[in-house]
Amino acid sequence: MEETFVPLQGIKNDLRGRLMCYKQDWTGGFRAGFRILAPTTYIFFASAIPVISFGEQLERSTEGVLTAVQTLASTAVCGIIHSIMGGQPLLILGVAEPTVIMYTFMFDFAKERPDLGRNLFLAWTAWVCVWTAALLFLMAILGACSIINRFTRVAGELFGLLIAMLFMQQAIKGLVEEFRIPKQEDLNQTEYIPSWRFANGMFALVLSFGLLLTAMRSRKARSWRYGTGWLRSFIADYGVPLMVLVWTAVSYIPSHTVPDRIPRRLFSPNPWSPGAYGNWTVVKDMLNVPIFYIIGAFIPATMIAVLYYFDHSVASQLSQQKEFNLRKPPSYHYDLLLLGFLTLMCGLIGIPPSNGVIPQSPMHTKSLATLKHQLLRNRLVATARKSIKKNTTLGQLYGNMQEAYRQMQTPLIYQQSTVLGLKELKETTIQTAASTGQLDAPVDETLFDVEKEIDDLLPVEVKEQRLSNLLQSMMVGGCVAAMPFLKMIPTSVLWGYFAFMAIESLPGNQFWERILLLFTAPSRRYKVLEEYHTTFVETVPFKAIVTFTLFQTAYLLVCFGLTWVPIAGVMFPLMIMLLVPVRQYILPKFFKGAHLQDLDAAEYEEAPALPFNMAAESELGTGASCAGDGEILDEVITRSRGEFRHVSSPKITSSTTTPARDVITNLQSPRAVFSPRMSELRAERSPDTRPYSPSSREKKSTLGKSPSSNADSK
Amino acid sequence: MEETFVPLQGIKNDLRGRLMCYKQDWTGGFRAGFRILAPTTYIFFASAIPVISFGEQLERSTEGVLTAVQTLASTAVCGIIHSIMGGQPLLILGVAEPTVIMYTFMFDFAKERPDLGRNLFLAWTAWVCVWTAALLFLMAILGACSIINRFTRVAGELFGLLIAMLFMQQAIKGLVEEFRIPKQEDLNQTEYIPSWRFANGMFALVLSFGLLLTAMRSRKARSWRYGTGWLRSFIADYGVPLMVLVWTAVSYIPSHTVPDRIPRRLFSPNPWSPGAYGNWTVVKDMLNVPIFYIIGAFIPATMIAVLYYFDHSVASQLSQQKEFNLRKPPSYHYDLLLLGFLTLMCGLIGIPPSNGVIPQSPMHTKSLATLKHQLLRNRLVATARKSIKKNTTLGQLYGNMQEAYRQMQTPLIYQQSTVLGLKELKETTIQTAASTGQLDAPVDETLFDVEKEIDDLLPVEVKEQRLSNLLQSMMVGGCVAAMPFLKMIPTSVLWGYFAFMAIESLPGNQFWERILLLFTAPSRRYKVLEEYHTTFVETVPFKAIVTFTLFQTAYLLVCFGLTWVPIAGVMFPLMIMLLVPVRQYILPKFFKGAHLQDLDAAEYEEAPALPFNMAAESELGTGASCAGDGEILDEVITRSRGEFRHVSSPKITSSTTTPARDVITNLQSPRAVFSPRMSELRAERSPDTRPYSPSSREKKSTLGKSPSSNADSK
Repeated sequence: MEETFVPLQGIKNDLRGRLMCYKQDWTGGFRAGFRILAPTTYIFFASAIPVISFGEQLERSTEGVLTAVQTLASTAVCGIIHSIMGGQPLLILGVAEPTVIMYTFMFDFAKERPDLGRNLFLAWTAWVCVWTAALLFLMAILGACSIINRFTRVAGELFGLLIAMLFMQQAIKGLVEEFRIPKQEDLNQTEYIPSWRFANGMFALVLSFGLLLTAMRSRKARSWRYGTGWLRSFIADYGVPLMVLVWTAVSYIPSHTVPDRIPRRLFSPNPWSPGAYGNWTVVKDMLNVPIFYIIGAFIPATMIAVLYYFDHSVASQLSQQKEFNLRKPPSYHYDLLLLGFLTLMCGLIGIPPSNGVIPQSPMHTKSLATLKHQLLRNRLVATARKSIKKNTTLGQLYGNMQEAYRQMQTPLIYQQSTVLGLKELKETTIQTAASTGQLDAPVDETLFDVEKEIDDLLPVEVKEQRLSNLLQSMMVGGCVAAMPFLKMIPTSVLWGYFAFMAIESLPGNQFWERILLLFTAPSRRYKVLEEYHTTFVETVPFKAIVTFTLFQTAYLLVCFGLTWVPIAGVMFPLMIMLLVPVRQYILPKFFKGAHLQDLDAAEYEEAPALPFNMAAESELGTGASCAGDGEILDEVITRSRGEFRHVSSPKITSSTTTPARDVITNLQSPRAVFSPRMSELRAERSPDTRPYSPSSREKKSTLGKSPSSNADSK
Repeated sequence: MEETFVPLQGIKNDLRGRLMCYKQDWTGGFRAGFRILAPTTYIFFASAIPVISFGEQLERSTEGVLTAVQTLASTAVCGIIHSIMGGQPLLILGVAEPTVIMYTFMFDFAKERPDLGRNLFLAWTAWVCVWTAALLFLMAILGACSIINRFTRVAGELFGLLIAMLFMQQAIKGLVEEFRIPKQEDLNQTEYIPSWRFANGMFALVLSFGLLLTAMRSRKARSWRYGTGWLRSFIADYGVPLMVLVWTAVSYIPSHTVPDRIPRRLFSPNPWSPGAYGNWTVVKDMLNVPIFYIIGAFIPATMIAVLYYFDHSVASQLSQQKEFNLRKPPSYHYDLLLLGFLTLMCGLIGIPPSNGVIPQSPMHTKSLATLKHQLLRNRLVATARKSIKKNTTLGQLYGNMQEAYRQMQTPLIYQQSTVLGLKELKETTIQTAASTGQLDAPVDETLFDVEKEIDDLLPVEVKEQRLSNLLQSMMVGGCVAAMPFLKMIPTSVLWGYFAFMAIESLPGNQFWERILLLFTAPSRRYKVLEEYHTTFVETVPFKAIVTFTLFQTAYLLVCFGLTWVPIAGVMFPLMIMLLVPVRQYILPKFFKGAHLQDLDAAEYEEAPALPFNMAAESELGTGASCAGDGEILDEVITRSRGEFRHVSSPKITSSTTTPARDVITNLQSPRAVFSPRMSELRAERSPDTRPYSPSSREKKSTLGKSPSSNADSK
């Protein structure tokens, strides 16, 4: 995306791009059939549970002015509007923690002013929203999102990890609270005598750890060895909601021996109870706000606007990482404009506004990648089976599969690389078959493992559509009506779910993976190289990785500490935005450009690949990372989490700032550039480069069925 | 072992064999240095914790006549005597559950007779022990243990699984009890009001699951990626006791907010409290027992004698399985004789007798295999490093290592296969090196990965000595004095430990692995073949595996059901002994001899191997199971449990009843013998036999660095 600040230019481009695929956004979603329900439910829970919990938090801190009903309503309404009219339908909207903190601060401010008070609080926040919306319009029109490219991995991942820490903090805080008496509660109730409080706390530990451990297990179900494929698939897709149900049911087992409110459950008014509608008519109080406060509302509005600008853009960016191979265009400018309208609307009906949320948005994309993989796989397996029955040759078989694959592609101009992934791999396989003379013989299904072959062929793709987002928003809206059922969920299950979300968001975060690398024993680092790993592990000296990671960790801790500061705390995103100039002007003084590029690939983009054979010549990048895209994908989808996971592609990464010839030089004298420690490990431990193993060379060439090694052998 | 029933012949043989290595039993133990403490502590906990818990059980059911002090004393005294004077020092002695059940039954009988009663109970049990001892002497002298060979895997593994079920049952029962009021307790105490009872139960859940999960994690520490090697090793060796400490400490965290006895802790009198010594002088009451009861004591005595004969022999047999490659001889007859003396002694001092226990005895052998592996490894790594520093060639390096290995071998006539394992593998490697011309060049440490190479070389060996058994027995004895500290352990931690022991005893049990195989989805069975698996998976049709396993499971459930029958229950070992004739006369009518042989290898012995090249010719047994002994050992030791694990050796198993030529015929038409399903899976899924992969053949030949393939290529 070029940095253009011509007014309205960005919005125009976004609209043009998205309109082109708007129809397909819907048809594609409906064509997925009932399977769309798997990512929908997954994201619905990830979206609704924090929002409910934030609502409870807001209820306590605003003395009941705002409740979970309002947060759910905001999430649902904004989500529905965004999924229909928004630019990027992968982005999930919701009321986020910073909004809650901001509203808490504003309530504390308002209730102490006699001329505002509790009564005019919502009217005043409506003015804040008006100003915020105005600022967001301005930013959208002037193209502020053009600089999104400068929000590099270092900032985005730090933000992601910070959110994970906040979620984990909430889980721990919540669990500790289970042992205490909640504020504003009657001390003399049965359930608050010490013995029941202790019992409640212990029960909470059992429920939350039970949920956390079983939910994490269930996500891995696809790679289980037991049970039928259908059951494994079902558990992997719906395991998390299922576990929420299961542990809620467990919480009722001792119900005849314990007092009513043990374990503690969600507490929220029903939306049809009197007074729950106070907020909807807030617009008529707006003119009662003293003019001084109307103008003063500009100050919190700037803070919220900056916050939303950053939060919304980064959430959008994280859900569109290069590794997902998205086919449809982004829409930062237009989405920011829409966010302005949504904020205005929320303000006028007196509910807290929603914005793009992390980690739900990237979770959404990941679950859609799994969905797309299943759809493609089923179709291709069916095609292949049919072809084999007709006694086709291997060549025809691949032809048929290619055709089926092409038919499933979105027919859009944005597909630069359409059927490339399948084609290249196919050719390698065919070539191999041809060399052994098997190409023209009919394919024998007992020898040709259809499912495995197809797993090897499929590239990572995402089912990009609007339906899952719309459905999950509607389900969030349904929660308002389902409040009586939701109130059956024990709060401890929520804390377990918070911890689950925090942990789920870690894999794929390179910052996190580098932190783990620091703790990896030197003698075991070769294991990292044997698995799918990011480029920097091989190209950047270990010392530079350590320094960079320590810097980032220190920065993270400062940001985390800042969230504890009462009022300034809400501005922690500013600290993260500060990373942009730090990255651009200060870090290059301490790190080599090429290293920095690999540690912090701009735009979440792998730099253009060098032809593969060059890497092979210098005996690099072959061993661990070239096991064929198929295996990578298999790993990607089913590995430890049953979900998409970021891996670097099997290539040597150069960078746009480092000319290609530099990289070539590096490759020719690898030891000079590589960390001595890591490269030695590589030579010593990598199974493919171990000495005295005559098979290593053959393996290398046959395993390297990468596009370019194929091109080379032509 | 030949079946000889010449009186005293068996004992004489045993004594001759063991005397020959008696001195080495001690010197070997002391030479291991402080490392011997790892298996010692591991087994001490596995030995002491159940004994303490059985003692508590006994205390309740004998109204305090016998307590944990007596069970600990018996375990310690018998253990010390056996470790010094016993034949097989790998065997662990202890008071076992069947003994406890038997004593409970006898107490119930005695207390209802006015002329016996509570006072003469111990005197009467002394008579029972006298008779039992007499029967054991008779059996030992007449060579009853000669038929131990007929106690095949089917019986031993069924017994092992039954014990695991009993341990698990005890864990679950114990946990449920934590929610209830213990018998004979005052209902009005604070800790038994409903709220505290519920709190106690929930706390117990947290503590027991905490112990179970962390203990299982810690056993895998050796393969962790994080932390230094020293720390990983320490956690793997001492993790379980450490976790008992940690969770006991955790149980004290809320001590200022909860009543004194929450969570419930071990309850046992101190050995120095008055009345705790009533039992020691029981011998002077023996003549007060009416003559009718003295004779009647013969009836329970026969039951106990049969029980001990079976239990002791099977425990001994399970700790000497062929896979452990033991070098020193067994000693079934002499050990049974000694058990007679020990039973007599225990009876006369009024404590319940000990016998060989499962799963502790096999756990002992496994932990000593890990120890031996570490010792050998350290020595060889040091030798290799020294050699490399002196710029030796690869040939010299292996020579030096061979010499170091030889020096560490027990110089005994029992070593039929002494340095074979190392030698064969070495030659393969050297040959490979020679063919690439690297043999005479000085070894470069940056290229030659010493530790990995040595891991590849080492065979499974067990540090056979008497020291660990002696030390652990003395530590159990020390428990009597340490009672005040032991009483700090929460009972819930014990239940977690019971569950841990049950789960720890499962891997390596082929019966269990077959049960898992039944639940494995057909499409995932190829994964079993890709890993280290037992021979029968490849040689026996799946249908036969299913039938056999279902029969065994039904039998197991009958035995388990029998343990619930009040009095007859104690005779469940008879049911298992009944399996011996069933196996010998009935099963052959339903299964082919060769299949039965593979499913139930007699003597826990793999039948003699066919030369490997025969297998290679017929393209069988190569893929998954021939990845080189080194890898297998690596897997064996570090895999999922940080402990030795049974795997079949990489060879095709024939059987003594099937002549070799039959097997050859089978191999030439593999599909006829193999299960169609499994063999197809093999052809389709095994990475080495996948079509269109030109590298599969090369890989096969290079990976097959087995002794005989090497012999073949000479």
